[in-house]
Amino acid sequence: MTNDQSNAMWGGRFAAGPDAIMEAINASVSFDKRLAAQDIAGSRAHAAMLAETGILSPTDAEAIRNGLCTVLSEIEAGDFAFSTALEDIHMNVEARLKDLIGEAAGRLHTARSRNDQVATDFRLWVRDQIDAAMSGLEALIRALLAQADAGADWVMPGFTHLQTAQPVTWGHHMMAYVEMFGRDMSRFADARVRMNECPLGAAALAGTSFPIDRHMTARALGFDRPAANSLDAVSDRDFALDFLSCASICAMHLSRLAEELVIWSSAQFRFVALSDRFSTGSSIMPQKKNPDAAELIRAKIGRIFGANVALMTVMKGLPLAYSKDMQEDKEQVFDAADTLMLALAAMEGMVRDMTANRPALEAAAASGFSTATDLADWLVRALNLPFREAHHVTGTLVALAEKRNCDLPDLRLEDMRAVHPGITAEVFGVLGVHNSVASRVSYGGTAPEQVRTQIGRWKERLG
Amino acid sequence: MTNDQSNAMWGGRFAAGPDAIMEAINASVSFDKRLAAQDIAGSRAHAAMLAETGILSPTDAEAIRNGLCTVLSEIEAGDFAFSTALEDIHMNVEARLKDLIGEAAGRLHTARSRNDQVATDFRLWVRDQIDAAMSGLEALIRALLAQADAGADWVMPGFTHLQTAQPVTWGHHMMAYVEMFGRDMSRFADARVRMNECPLGAAALAGTSFPIDRHMTARALGFDRPAANSLDAVSDRDFALDFLSCASICAMHLSRLAEELVIWSSAQFRFVALSDRFSTGSSIMPQKKNPDAAELIRAKIGRIFGANVALMTVMKGLPLAYSKDMQEDKEQVFDAADTLMLALAAMEGMVRDMTANRPALEAAAASGFSTATDLADWLVRALNLPFREAHHVTGTLVALAEKRNCDLPDLRLEDMRAVHPGITAEVFGVLGVHNSVASRVSYGGTAPEQVRTQIGRWKERLG
Amino acid sequence: MTNDQSNAMWGGRFAAGPDAIMEAINASVSFDKRLAAQDIAGSRAHAAMLAETGILSPTDAEAIRNGLCTVLSEIEAGDFAFSTALEDIHMNVEARLKDLIGEAAGRLHTARSRNDQVATDFRLWVRDQIDAAMSGLEALIRALLAQADAGADWVMPGFTHLQTAQPVTWGHHMMAYVEMFGRDMSRFADARVRMNECPLGAAALAGTSFPIDRHMTARALGFDRPAANSLDAVSDRDFALDFLSCASICAMHLSRLAEELVIWSSAQFRFVALSDRFSTGSSIMPQKKNPDAAELIRAKIGRIFGANVALMTVMKGLPLAYSKDMQEDKEQVFDAADTLMLALAAMEGMVRDMTANRPALEAAAASGFSTATDLADWLVRALNLPFREAHHVTGTLVALAEKRNCDLPDLRLEDMRAVHPGITAEVFGVLGVHNSVASRVSYGGTAPEQVRTQIGRWKERLG
Amino acid sequence: MTNDQSNAMWGGRFAAGPDAIMEAINASVSFDKRLAAQDIAGSRAHAAMLAETGILSPTDAEAIRNGLCTVLSEIEAGDFAFSTALEDIHMNVEARLKDLIGEAAGRLHTARSRNDQVATDFRLWVRDQIDAAMSGLEALIRALLAQADAGADWVMPGFTHLQTAQPVTWGHHMMAYVEMFGRDMSRFADARVRMNECPLGAAALAGTSFPIDRHMTARALGFDRPAANSLDAVSDRDFALDFLSCASICAMHLSRLAEELVIWSSAQFRFVALSDRFSTGSSIMPQKKNPDAAELIRAKIGRIFGANVALMTVMKGLPLAYSKDMQEDKEQVFDAADTLMLALAAMEGMVRDMTANRPALEAAAASGFSTATDLADWLVRALNLPFREAHHVTGTLVALAEKRNCDLPDLRLEDMRAVHPGITAEVFGVLGVHNSVASRVSYGGTAPEQVRTQIGRWKERLG
Repeated sequence: MTNDQSNAMWGGRFAAGPDAIMEAINASVSFDKRLAAQDIAGSRAHAAMLAETGILSPTDAEAIRNGLCTVLSEIEAGDFAFSTALEDIHMNVEARLKDLIGEAAGRLHTARSRNDQVATDFRLWVRDQIDAAMSGLEALIRALLAQADAGADWVMPGFTHLQTAQPVTWGHHMMAYVEMFGRDMSRFADARVRMNECPLGAAALAGTSFPIDRHMTARALGFDRPAANSLDAVSDRDFALDFLSCASICAMHLSRLAEELVIWSSAQFRFVALSDRFSTGSSIMPQKKNPDAAELIRAKIGRIFGANVALMTVMKGLPLAYSKDMQEDKEQVFDAADTLMLALAAMEGMVRDMTANRPALEAAAASGFSTATDLADWLVRALNLPFREAHHVTGTLVALAEKRNCDLPDLRLEDMRAVHPGITAEVFGVLGVHNSVASRVSYGGTAPEQVRTQIGRWKERLG
Repeated sequence: MTNDQSNAMWGGRFAAGPDAIMEAINASVSFDKRLAAQDIAGSRAHAAMLAETGILSPTDAEAIRNGLCTVLSEIEAGDFAFSTALEDIHMNVEARLKDLIGEAAGRLHTARSRNDQVATDFRLWVRDQIDAAMSGLEALIRALLAQADAGADWVMPGFTHLQTAQPVTWGHHMMAYVEMFGRDMSRFADARVRMNECPLGAAALAGTSFPIDRHMTARALGFDRPAANSLDAVSDRDFALDFLSCASICAMHLSRLAEELVIWSSAQFRFVALSDRFSTGSSIMPQKKNPDAAELIRAKIGRIFGANVALMTVMKGLPLAYSKDMQEDKEQVFDAADTLMLALAAMEGMVRDMTANRPALEAAAASGFSTATDLADWLVRALNLPFREAHHVTGTLVALAEKRNCDLPDLRLEDMRAVHPGITAEVFGVLGVHNSVASRVSYGGTAPEQVRTQIGRWKERLG
Repeated sequence: MTNDQSNAMWGGRFAAGPDAIMEAINASVSFDKRLAAQDIAGSRAHAAMLAETGILSPTDAEAIRNGLCTVLSEIEAGDFAFSTALEDIHMNVEARLKDLIGEAAGRLHTARSRNDQVATDFRLWVRDQIDAAMSGLEALIRALLAQADAGADWVMPGFTHLQTAQPVTWGHHMMAYVEMFGRDMSRFADARVRMNECPLGAAALAGTSFPIDRHMTARALGFDRPAANSLDAVSDRDFALDFLSCASICAMHLSRLAEELVIWSSAQFRFVALSDRFSTGSSIMPQKKNPDAAELIRAKIGRIFGANVALMTVMKGLPLAYSKDMQEDKEQVFDAADTLMLALAAMEGMVRDMTANRPALEAAAASGFSTATDLADWLVRALNLPFREAHHVTGTLVALAEKRNCDLPDLRLEDMRAVHPGITAEVFGVLGVHNSVASRVSYGGTAPEQVRTQIGRWKERLG
Repeated sequence: MTNDQSNAMWGGRFAAGPDAIMEAINASVSFDKRLAAQDIAGSRAHAAMLAETGILSPTDAEAIRNGLCTVLSEIEAGDFAFSTALEDIHMNVEARLKDLIGEAAGRLHTARSRNDQVATDFRLWVRDQIDAAMSGLEALIRALLAQADAGADWVMPGFTHLQTAQPVTWGHHMMAYVEMFGRDMSRFADARVRMNECPLGAAALAGTSFPIDRHMTARALGFDRPAANSLDAVSDRDFALDFLSCASICAMHLSRLAEELVIWSSAQFRFVALSDRFSTGSSIMPQKKNPDAAELIRAKIGRIFGANVALMTVMKGLPLAYSKDMQEDKEQVFDAADTLMLALAAMEGMVRDMTANRPALEAAAASGFSTATDLADWLVRALNLPFREAHHVTGTLVALAEKRNCDLPDLRLEDMRAVHPGITAEVFGVLGVHNSVASRVSYGGTAPEQVRTQIGRWKERLG
């Protein structure tokens, strides 16, 4: 069963033995260095508070705060040598601080622990991502509003089961996505409010006997309040899961729009033309435009929701308080956040650039007896037929039109009257697709005036 | 490769041929009959609105509304014969209504469609579940508060990595879960606000040309407003996904507490005794109590989060508006909701009934040099040592105590002074576990007074 | 925060108090009664072995074996009163056996435990499902082979990115799915071999001191051997996870085919017509056929893979040996298996019934310069151009054809020669779609002769 | 709703505009460069075949094959400048080849496409990972066998519900994991057989008209045969999903063992001591050893199964043949494979290094009346009591011992006889834990002789 080649490969990965393996599995600085800015902001706020409460001398606090600024500059300039032996970003920063300012650096860690420190850093990072996601969503919504504005009265098929059901307007279809992405914004906003509590001062897990002022550090870091239970503060990763849940649902919305763009770009649909910037061509078929960006966005839900599954699985059944398992939280969120921002940016660009094929949309909308329900509704309204009977009459007329190889507006009045004698010429007023969409003026309906009302509401809301 | 027996088995399932297969995969009444009350409430509101707007005569509306009450009574009494041939709950109700009141029943479906009807029904059902979840969470929080109140000053080990780190109080540990379940309540509350928009009147997908009043039906059904885009209204299942996300995170919290109860019930820990009601015994080992309920609760996250994964997967890449795929939403949410309510009820009962083993908790808290950080903090505070140096001195003292086979409070002052001459007798004031917990008075810390403050805050909040 | 109505609702569910809650969460007979036949088969094999090894008297064994047959008959006839108080199927069967044959029933449980009993029962059940899945897959493959046979040489577009890339044959496309479902069969077959070990005799977890013969019971139940470690035998649920993994990948394949059927059924594609049996109509638009069955099959991956996630989550981090968490295994597998069998049956019916629209397929295949790569390959082959240069020449010719609003075969030879003077009239031999597919005779290629070879191979393999 | 800071952040990420966004989402070379060795091996095999079949001149083929070796050397030496503008590894390699050998490089791509090329490369990479996983599993099994060998007769508690149920042996417990990891090996081996078909020659999706020899390239790359359908060959990612399924189940097994190690390392259990190499200490509590590696391994199931969910979600509902969505396959598998190999290596090291605390294990095994079932079995065997009655008698004796505050072997014979007069002094032979484990000689039972038999079987199997 032994396979020398693969043994070599497997063994080769870990040739340096147990110590290399432990370092590889245990050290986090390779990824948690992304928290450097947050770590330093947290430490600076902590030092200021320690000075204010008299736990640290003003001189030491000043030295620490200035030293931390230097460290941040070094990191931002790319001049910082991260050390895996120092395990994580916290120890890397503190060690460099000691190089810079000497023993005083050793007083920074008073009344805190890496447990509350990393919880604070990561929360700050996630909070920034929530803000970024909301900006990205807003930009995408604006792109959709522009499309909706331009085509508030263009008709297109409204589909159920990917079969034409009723005519709708292009603007209305765009606005459906505005509602979805608007809910995503509200979801992220809720998550932001819920997570905006500061773990700093929870220390290892029990709080501290130093006379710290947790409200001061919370305020300094933009939190609404300190977290109310120190055990929970270091054990909680709900804020990361909330972010991943919001991102997953948003990615699901993106996947739906992306799917439509892929289908609409096909030679069979030709509903939209994507810009060259968001397509790829073929050296051999210059006319071919592959909707690569749309396909990639459609796929990104896998990655983002996979991260959600990963972290939920990690957290399942973990006893309190801190367990090392929780170190698995960061890479999942980092990757999901990067992926979401990229997908939002790409979708915004695609939506902004895309061109609706108005004639193709209208032709498709007008086929397939798409105004049959308009006819039925007219029968109810004008002739007071019960709904189910009106449906039956309409079905007979559609079958007749199909037999005659024409559409509903092409039927002659006498033919209609043969099916139901009450029908009058007034019926033709509801049979065209433009008449159809114009008539659906119920709140939230597809009538252009309704679409414009909703566009206006959203523009006002976004400011 | 053929296997006659299994062929028979497989074939046997579908012996009735294609029609039976289609009915089996397509009909939903076997499960969506759970929406009967919501369906009838929605129809009654719709009928009242149709009358108010003059679309329906008062007589017909009255007949419909009364007939629907009769149908509901029949269903509640178990006297209703559901028909799979009628596919779903909507058609079952309407067919029975027609039996009862005749042709007028056919006017009920004016200006709506099954698409907005089912979206409304299901949303009402989910909203009820949110309310139920919040009640269940509140009951569980009260049970935890009672435990915290009783043991606000009982000491126990605070763990990291399942290793004793520092002493904490039983009350503090209970309150960590109060925070978690409190966040769950806030999460459900947010979801409720976001989902509380009424799809009714979106009709098939485009709205309607009837002069309906969507605000009236929205109000009548307790919604804050009608949904603003008819395509979105029939395509959206975010409310179900929000429910499943909230339920999943809540189930994760339950799994953590359940894991602790299983570990704490082991012969090796003996931290708690679960009541007989939530354990199972062995006919042969009468002293044995298996924490079955805790284990089952721990497992329920699988089922609930599995439902979340299922529905996210279903929704991935679905073009607008209604696709039949979305019929898969209900069973997942039904099962997840039932599971969550049961798990909350069982956990509440277990927490209410369980008995903490105070001596075992205290003994465990006092072992393992659990007050080492208190000693280090004292060295910083009293002798002004830098944090990192204080840690070093403490480490030396712990090693000494370990060598002497005693704990820190048992060391003699002169032995301590040999390690650091600045140490005074005052140090013994921080070394006992009771001193330790009493000293951690930082906001949210484990000191009994802090715990009682937080208990008070929560009691006030719950009213 | 209290909500009386929802309190009532929530409380109402569990009004009967803790005992009702515990019974609701703990008892399994409501679902594990599906294991009745397997449970009785296992018990009969066990009794026979106990007699053979002298642990049980022949008389008792006979009474037990006959009594169990009676119990099974009662269950199959629907005459059996399952009792929740007796918790599970095992106790229900044993209690009834005691009613029937008296005290001897109490000897059946010698040298076994419910832990090895349920592991055996469930393994037998899953094994049956593997056989059923393989039968279902075989039937589906036969339906695809019939389609492939009929249309081995019908041309249709081969898509990448849902854009026409090259012409392929209908038969070739059908055979791609045959390969997928064939891999599914192989995956299930592997799982069957791996799981076919008998847990019976592992007893509670440690084996037994009775002189049992585990090989005898293993053989009697169709297992290849007894499981080799008693702790593992009662802790292992790999067989269920293997089943769910196989089912999930199979459901993924089904979702791809279902997606194609939905797209192909659209008015824009019209590549296939589904039969009325697997579509639903509209009372109002009689010409409309909604591909409901295809959509539902597409969605079923959610349910099946959700079950996989659920059970993986349950098993994560469970210490040995039996934990009650594992009771969550059955409902997930039951539902996934039922869903898979139904989806396979529905897909088989749909494939068998569907009609390819040969003219629409051919027209689509011939558009979009789909033979551009054939032209490029000809340039390489006939003129010995390097591949990349041939691509460039082809691109120029496609651009020319596009400008002229014609397709490649419609270009004049002199126009082609203006682009590359080496081109001869022979080139027209590769430009039509029929020539194109006929030329792709590489192993596994789309040429009709290759397709027929593969059909033949599969027919032989299935027998 | 605008937030300038986050706008800046979000905008900042994509300041370079649409082109930068498209490059960021579309280019894959940043990760698919890991396929360099496989890509070059595939190209070399392809070139050799093109020469053999006369499609390429021997001179060109020689130049290409040598040039590719040079490219590989450059990459391995770290001297290769990867270009994002060239999108992927394939174009990067080909461009460099052209630099090196000129126009002949352009002939390499004859009769293939990037679609079959990437499918081949990735399949080769995954196959290597399967081999590596099997080597890692074998090493872990050997470490477990060494532990089992050393402690084949050490007694420890066998747990159900984390409650002591019956005594087992340390060796037996170790061997349970050997069975699990052995199944993992068999699962990977099955996946390897199923995936070992070569896509090369499928070209874009339809095969090719060049007279290629796919069997030759398949053989050269170690495949069993060419893939039988060209559409499937470029659309299939089952091999990646199979790898992820196998890795996920293996990670689940690792999580169970890791959980046990965490619990066993607690101060309350003290069943094992982990080595310093796989623990981390505390500067302040030198005696404390945190089982960091075990916790991290326990968590890794999240990451690996998250990747499985991600790729399943990506593949759901993708129409044939190649869609860009499928580019999301690689990073998931790369990360899961790296994670699995690391987790296997760390677990192997931990198992090899860990020390069982034999006295603590034995003391725990002997408590809690763990031989009650031995007593009951004796009553059945020696006195011929029915199983259920024997259980009742045993329960009475356990209750008696509990009342007397002693264990079962400490009861006096006359006390036992008072409960059941048939009991003889022979009963004491089964009551000690060593007697208990020695008696469980059924196949696969915990008796040391059985454990040694299984160890021997595994050693022989591994060779």
